[in-house]
Amino acid sequence: MTRTLNQPLGGDTMPRTGGPGTMMRLPAAESAAGLDACFLGIPMDIGTSNRPGTRLGPRQIRDESRMIRPYNMATGAAPFDHLQVADIGDVPINLYDLKKSVEIIAQHYREVLSHDAIPLTLGGDHTLTWPILRAMAAKHGPVALIHVDAHSDTNDTMFGEKVAHGCPFRRAWEEGCLINDKVFQIGLRGSGYSREEFDWGRKQGWSCIQAEECWHKSLTPLMAEIREKIGNAPVYLSYDIDSLDPAFAPGTGTVEVGGLTTMQGLEIIRGTAGLNLVGGDLVEVSPPYDPTGNTAVIAANFLFEMLCALPGVSRLR
Amino acid sequence: MTRTLNQPLGGDTMPRTGGPGTMMRLPAAESAAGLDACFLGIPMDIGTSNRPGTRLGPRQIRDESRMIRPYNMATGAAPFDHLQVADIGDVPINLYDLKKSVEIIAQHYREVLSHDAIPLTLGGDHTLTWPILRAMAAKHGPVALIHVDAHSDTNDTMFGEKVAHGCPFRRAWEEGCLINDKVFQIGLRGSGYSREEFDWGRKQGWSCIQAEECWHKSLTPLMAEIREKIGNAPVYLSYDIDSLDPAFAPGTGTVEVGGLTTMQGLEIIRGTAGLNLVGGDLVEVSPPYDPTGNTAVIAANFLFEMLCALPGVSRLR
Amino acid sequence: MTRTLNQPLGGDTMPRTGGPGTMMRLPAAESAAGLDACFLGIPMDIGTSNRPGTRLGPRQIRDESRMIRPYNMATGAAPFDHLQVADIGDVPINLYDLKKSVEIIAQHYREVLSHDAIPLTLGGDHTLTWPILRAMAAKHGPVALIHVDAHSDTNDTMFGEKVAHGCPFRRAWEEGCLINDKVFQIGLRGSGYSREEFDWGRKQGWSCIQAEECWHKSLTPLMAEIREKIGNAPVYLSYDIDSLDPAFAPGTGTVEVGGLTTMQGLEIIRGTAGLNLVGGDLVEVSPPYDPTGNTAVIAANFLFEMLCALPGVSRLR
Amino acid sequence: MTRTLNQPLGGDTMPRTGGPGTMMRLPAAESAAGLDACFLGIPMDIGTSNRPGTRLGPRQIRDESRMIRPYNMATGAAPFDHLQVADIGDVPINLYDLKKSVEIIAQHYREVLSHDAIPLTLGGDHTLTWPILRAMAAKHGPVALIHVDAHSDTNDTMFGEKVAHGCPFRRAWEEGCLINDKVFQIGLRGSGYSREEFDWGRKQGWSCIQAEECWHKSLTPLMAEIREKIGNAPVYLSYDIDSLDPAFAPGTGTVEVGGLTTMQGLEIIRGTAGLNLVGGDLVEVSPPYDPTGNTAVIAANFLFEMLCALPGVSRLR
Amino acid sequence: MTRTLNQPLGGDTMPRTGGPGTMMRLPAAESAAGLDACFLGIPMDIGTSNRPGTRLGPRQIRDESRMIRPYNMATGAAPFDHLQVADIGDVPINLYDLKKSVEIIAQHYREVLSHDAIPLTLGGDHTLTWPILRAMAAKHGPVALIHVDAHSDTNDTMFGEKVAHGCPFRRAWEEGCLINDKVFQIGLRGSGYSREEFDWGRKQGWSCIQAEECWHKSLTPLMAEIREKIGNAPVYLSYDIDSLDPAFAPGTGTVEVGGLTTMQGLEIIRGTAGLNLVGGDLVEVSPPYDPTGNTAVIAANFLFEMLCALPGVSRLR
Amino acid sequence: MTRTLNQPLGGDTMPRTGGPGTMMRLPAAESAAGLDACFLGIPMDIGTSNRPGTRLGPRQIRDESRMIRPYNMATGAAPFDHLQVADIGDVPINLYDLKKSVEIIAQHYREVLSHDAIPLTLGGDHTLTWPILRAMAAKHGPVALIHVDAHSDTNDTMFGEKVAHGCPFRRAWEEGCLINDKVFQIGLRGSGYSREEFDWGRKQGWSCIQAEECWHKSLTPLMAEIREKIGNAPVYLSYDIDSLDPAFAPGTGTVEVGGLTTMQGLEIIRGTAGLNLVGGDLVEVSPPYDPTGNTAVIAANFLFEMLCALPGVSRLR
Repeated sequence: MTRTLNQPLGGDTMPRTGGPGTMMRLPAAESAAGLDACFLGIPMDIGTSNRPGTRLGPRQIRDESRMIRPYNMATGAAPFDHLQVADIGDVPINLYDLKKSVEIIAQHYREVLSHDAIPLTLGGDHTLTWPILRAMAAKHGPVALIHVDAHSDTNDTMFGEKVAHGCPFRRAWEEGCLINDKVFQIGLRGSGYSREEFDWGRKQGWSCIQAEECWHKSLTPLMAEIREKIGNAPVYLSYDIDSLDPAFAPGTGTVEVGGLTTMQGLEIIRGTAGLNLVGGDLVEVSPPYDPTGNTAVIAANFLFEMLCALPGVSRLR
Repeated sequence: MTRTLNQPLGGDTMPRTGGPGTMMRLPAAESAAGLDACFLGIPMDIGTSNRPGTRLGPRQIRDESRMIRPYNMATGAAPFDHLQVADIGDVPINLYDLKKSVEIIAQHYREVLSHDAIPLTLGGDHTLTWPILRAMAAKHGPVALIHVDAHSDTNDTMFGEKVAHGCPFRRAWEEGCLINDKVFQIGLRGSGYSREEFDWGRKQGWSCIQAEECWHKSLTPLMAEIREKIGNAPVYLSYDIDSLDPAFAPGTGTVEVGGLTTMQGLEIIRGTAGLNLVGGDLVEVSPPYDPTGNTAVIAANFLFEMLCALPGVSRLR
Repeated sequence: MTRTLNQPLGGDTMPRTGGPGTMMRLPAAESAAGLDACFLGIPMDIGTSNRPGTRLGPRQIRDESRMIRPYNMATGAAPFDHLQVADIGDVPINLYDLKKSVEIIAQHYREVLSHDAIPLTLGGDHTLTWPILRAMAAKHGPVALIHVDAHSDTNDTMFGEKVAHGCPFRRAWEEGCLINDKVFQIGLRGSGYSREEFDWGRKQGWSCIQAEECWHKSLTPLMAEIREKIGNAPVYLSYDIDSLDPAFAPGTGTVEVGGLTTMQGLEIIRGTAGLNLVGGDLVEVSPPYDPTGNTAVIAANFLFEMLCALPGVSRLR
Repeated sequence: MTRTLNQPLGGDTMPRTGGPGTMMRLPAAESAAGLDACFLGIPMDIGTSNRPGTRLGPRQIRDESRMIRPYNMATGAAPFDHLQVADIGDVPINLYDLKKSVEIIAQHYREVLSHDAIPLTLGGDHTLTWPILRAMAAKHGPVALIHVDAHSDTNDTMFGEKVAHGCPFRRAWEEGCLINDKVFQIGLRGSGYSREEFDWGRKQGWSCIQAEECWHKSLTPLMAEIREKIGNAPVYLSYDIDSLDPAFAPGTGTVEVGGLTTMQGLEIIRGTAGLNLVGGDLVEVSPPYDPTGNTAVIAANFLFEMLCALPGVSRLR
Repeated sequence: MTRTLNQPLGGDTMPRTGGPGTMMRLPAAESAAGLDACFLGIPMDIGTSNRPGTRLGPRQIRDESRMIRPYNMATGAAPFDHLQVADIGDVPINLYDLKKSVEIIAQHYREVLSHDAIPLTLGGDHTLTWPILRAMAAKHGPVALIHVDAHSDTNDTMFGEKVAHGCPFRRAWEEGCLINDKVFQIGLRGSGYSREEFDWGRKQGWSCIQAEECWHKSLTPLMAEIREKIGNAPVYLSYDIDSLDPAFAPGTGTVEVGGLTTMQGLEIIRGTAGLNLVGGDLVEVSPPYDPTGNTAVIAANFLFEMLCALPGVSRLR
Repeated sequence: MTRTLNQPLGGDTMPRTGGPGTMMRLPAAESAAGLDACFLGIPMDIGTSNRPGTRLGPRQIRDESRMIRPYNMATGAAPFDHLQVADIGDVPINLYDLKKSVEIIAQHYREVLSHDAIPLTLGGDHTLTWPILRAMAAKHGPVALIHVDAHSDTNDTMFGEKVAHGCPFRRAWEEGCLINDKVFQIGLRGSGYSREEFDWGRKQGWSCIQAEECWHKSLTPLMAEIREKIGNAPVYLSYDIDSLDPAFAPGTGTVEVGGLTTMQGLEIIRGTAGLNLVGGDLVEVSPPYDPTGNTAVIAANFLFEMLCALPGVSRLR
């Protein structure tokens, strides 16, 4: 018995500026049942320390995904030839209580993962990765992590709180969700409270590649190294849009200058192909600081590139 | 047998910044079958003479409709207690050929009207009202018209063309779609090519109320008069957002100063309650010229007010 | 012994685009000690249901207050001839825990009020008025309230939570902070979940003046009536910028169309002169939705008008 | 011998978004020779005290004038049937020395006036009206003045300087350019340094109508009164866009809340028809604060309305 | 007999923010007669598939060209010392009928080419290159092509239509306008409907250099190669601004991430010096998506660089 | 006796969106007395030739500095462990007379330098560097100069004026403020009036590194060379934000395409560590052209990096 695979609504069927407000104009689904991969959103920004707005990220990313066509001209990936994919909507987080939202997210992802669908998440602030990693570890055991970000997000607390967008990887570490010698943080930079900030991860065995190490060159070799080190372990990809230099991605809340280029971001995500990716997220897009919508365009494309890199998607060339 | 009426997704179920990208976060439907009223979009701007952008109007209006709750605090109308309503998506117009698009629209509305659902249209440029009126007349015979606009849109041609956003009511008149003594144009103003522009309609028996006649006062008395004159005739409401002064609705393409206020706009639409409304549209919202999204907020609310004014919606007070 | 009264830094001393980032370029002070009135900010938006951004309100209002000169040309008030005024900075709220922030605010205002200074607050989302009213009632007993807003903000809960920007006046009422027959809500409008929303206040004896009752006319007579009813009672003025129509104040998060004009807003605040004002706030300014900064200009001017209306400020004409 | 009158390029000849960048897409002219009226720009903002940007005003006003058609639908005026009009470009002011710019402007207008053309000026900051009035008085003797503005612009000095955008009418008065009992200032408001600011003009016999006197009503009766008082005297109209409330005209530098509406602005300018208008200006449009371009649209229309009100333009109805 | 060469209006004669709205503030001309090169605009966007706005491109490019001075500091080119250049205005396309517009453009360029002037076109959507190439081939026979773009624009149809901004090079190929082994497409990337999209050109013998091949390096060597291959053939340069990464050129309609840098764009255009350039265009600038105007600044500079690369312009160093 | 060093207000004490409007939320100081280094602003733009707005630069840079933490994660510098630093406010320049402003600035910096504090200046247009260099030379004798800019700013005059933002280094040279063989101009590019523009400096012995020489590579080697050449001489660093490509720094007035990257900018400033820096400025940030605020974020970070590079700040790694 063959199944019919969902396809994004094409531009010859409906103008790109029309059609459903789903990711890539894919069919909406009620749950992850029957899916190989799914897009879902977390419209949250109450874990944010500086500029807000990421609560509108999922809506804007979906909107600006409308022009993406099904075939990846660079890698040859044709994900909709191989995977059943749908947009399963948003997680109904509690906008007035961050700690409760964390529980809602964890619960929601346990449900998604019960269907064996790979979740690709449209954030939302980075707090959300903690409960996702918790659900990941519950299913897969500890996971390898590729974390692309301007910030290490390993604070013990912010303003005395354990739950905030600067703490998710510290929390995930505390709960044993990570394979410490297979954690890679790429793009870290900026100012901090002390030297310890990036070194904390290093003490746990993590690899922290500061942005300055990435300047003026391709990251394709770095990704080859990372693939080598991760091997077959299940791996989660958490992509914070603020890893990019603000020239490329102005629409975010905690801007750090001197970041990665979009080209490097593409090299990173494309460089995960061949790994055992079990999930991914794209976080910290803040539409009120994105007057042209182009930060959301990047986010939408990066999520499509994640889909193209999933296990089971072969490449035509 | 009772049917369950669709309800907009509530803010206690899903944060306002999440949820589906449909009008008022209502359920989507494939067609108008089984509906009393429906929202649908026409993502078109190729009939526009000055600033473009209305092709993105339906997406933006839906997005900014996310905060509208089901009950009208001013009029007491609770449309979702009475009517089956859904969002039936967009008309797949041809972005490269305006004349073909007109045919596609006419055809699409004939299909919608075959289900006896009242269509409320998210525009799109004003060209679209011509094919809608053609479908209306095919079903109802000639209709009364309340046309709120800065422009009369009764040009014979623009740049030699019969089909453009300045001509729809001339075309509808030519085809006999209108009951000429029941046509009301409200808000006309600005500059023109000659005195004849507004007088052409008057010669056909239409009532043309220029914006200057509306300044500094309530339009509730005017609407009482209009209701009196229209009586039981089927009536179509075409609301061009540029009828409003650009202070209120900056996000549009052919701006004329000295227009109506939003308060007057609400009085007009609320003043259609009691009439035999057979359809309505809200056109000319151009998101690229609406940096705060607030023009789309007005459009979304005006469409909700149209829904509240439909036959069959009783008012609690 | 005479004291020297603080004066805003003048435009002939320092260009308007320079000078300190305080309210009206007044001196900063560490506390309210020795002050008759003070400006202070609450950089919070985590009680917000739709668009965020009010956490940046205090910074933006202060920035855009830079052009206000010390004398009120309309009312003749010269507040800096009579009152010792300073900017005492911001309340260090907890951005990651709304409930804790409410306690921090309440505590902070008890301290301010211990100095007998009248606080004029730069918001921040409307949640903040609850803890302020609690501090007010602790000092003055229940107070009269003039609440200008598009929303009644009397929800029992939002998303199941008791603390959110739609609930402050319900909470204040529960705690007995208000003199129920001296509560006036002006500008209410929009859509709701049911008819009860505005009637709940009415059942407590409050006066709820819906926006539609205000259209097309001066509110000076209304304010005369309200002054008559309030008499000598201590009165708190809570001004939500979304009471204004979005044409006037686009930069806010929960936009409702058909609101008050800035002219009416000025009539309301000027109309409180002569009352026993014990505090005031200006809330819900969201700079990311205010591309020209003009919503913050209104907010700054309205706060200056509140200062001009305080007891002890005589009017020259 | 008949002359051919210049006509704005029509929309059926060239799309509105194309065509020359002149005012109303009129022909450009090298000088005012042979013209009855002319548009000219002064790209200056170095007399500004707060937000800059008016140096770009003339370019933006011309750009946004592109949609204005030749006939005035409200008044019936058809200026291009009666007057020879062209755009004579910009005054080459010295951007680095305000005092020299004043001399350049005065000289330039003496040249324009030598041709008996009526100049309609696209500003530019308000400093420019002083040298224009000097040239006016040199030709016509003292003139009557209708000055629409949020500010009286009668400061003796700003930051110790005699030349700045807050001083032009004081300078013009000192030089005897004005007929003091025929000076009308409309729309004054906001804060000031002292009560004297508006009273200074009153002491010279000027009529100062504060904005509050204009709220909630038509200004047509006021203009009838003003016409009566001015009689046949030569009259200059200086229109500062900040006279309008910032809801209507956000794009300006020294914003004051509670201003006139665009409708009232139209009533004022239309109300000058029948007077002996010898010149007019529209100043203080700051494009960087006008993200939609609509403030420039107002400015362009107001300049067109000035043209329609000039002597020699009859009205068809 | 010597002729006087037109010069751009200098900044010491007129402030940069004033002066005519022509390209580089050059003199306007009625036609191409007597010119060596000319700038002209095509204010069209009705061939666009996603975001509109390019109809305003020519106006905005001209506006933002105001700061370009006559000498190229990088290449030493002084084009106005060698060529007679003017701005000959816009092509009066039909905004309501794309197919008719194509004919109007073809006709217009035949007229321009009859004067032996080299046209440099300010777009406008990319549809316009087809009729230009048709006129080019009519004059020169098939031409070599350097096409810089994110998209190959070789679709057979879009939405069933042969004329749209994704098809011009397919049409030009069909009509034999191109020398197939001298066609170079640079910067192609993004998603597509199938692998064939870029391979179609390759099958015709075209060189398609995908963006990924360009990352992290200078394109000067590539251009040397291309010059070698083109030799003395007449060559047309079509520069789509969306070839640039959206970080550099946000103001365009069909955004693809991971593009060229402006530096590479300069290398490409400067690298055409020495070729037999017979024309060039700069297309797809969409001002509504260019809030700072900087995309238009790039476009203006790139057009100036094309002028500097024309035959007959020697380089001082 | 130990002194307590000022610290920026931390994010765990006050949310980043609150706190004082000073640079990095440092304490304000009345003067430079007792300070090792100080930040101060010059809110001026009247020396600007094209887009204005830099008068708002200091306010915006301070605002967007709010997220910078005290430790430099890239260089290990901890400036607040070593230096007493404060924000000493703005220079009260005369907005209506550029020449007087130059005198005010020179006087102001003589006073600052009398306290042996190193001034780091928030501009303001580039005219300001002339009077600063004059004060520098008065204290230190001629200084070495690292000047990062798109323009050489060595015009003799602009519009006939000696004082303008294109002339400061010519003036400083005339007055003997510079050590000519230790002047480095980096990033020069764009168009000019003649070949001489960059060569003038070269004739004085200056090193002019054009932007094209910097493309596609690290500037760390260049800075090593420059440090070598400067040796122990006192050196002033003048950083014009328009040295950066507009992709990185859109918010400036005289945009030139093809500039430096932010990464290169960081390399330059970090590369000055070890030199005898006696002062620095960051000029030409124009907030009205910076809709996201990110240009000001860069400026704030670059000023922090200058602080980190000052003598006396050791680096932990």
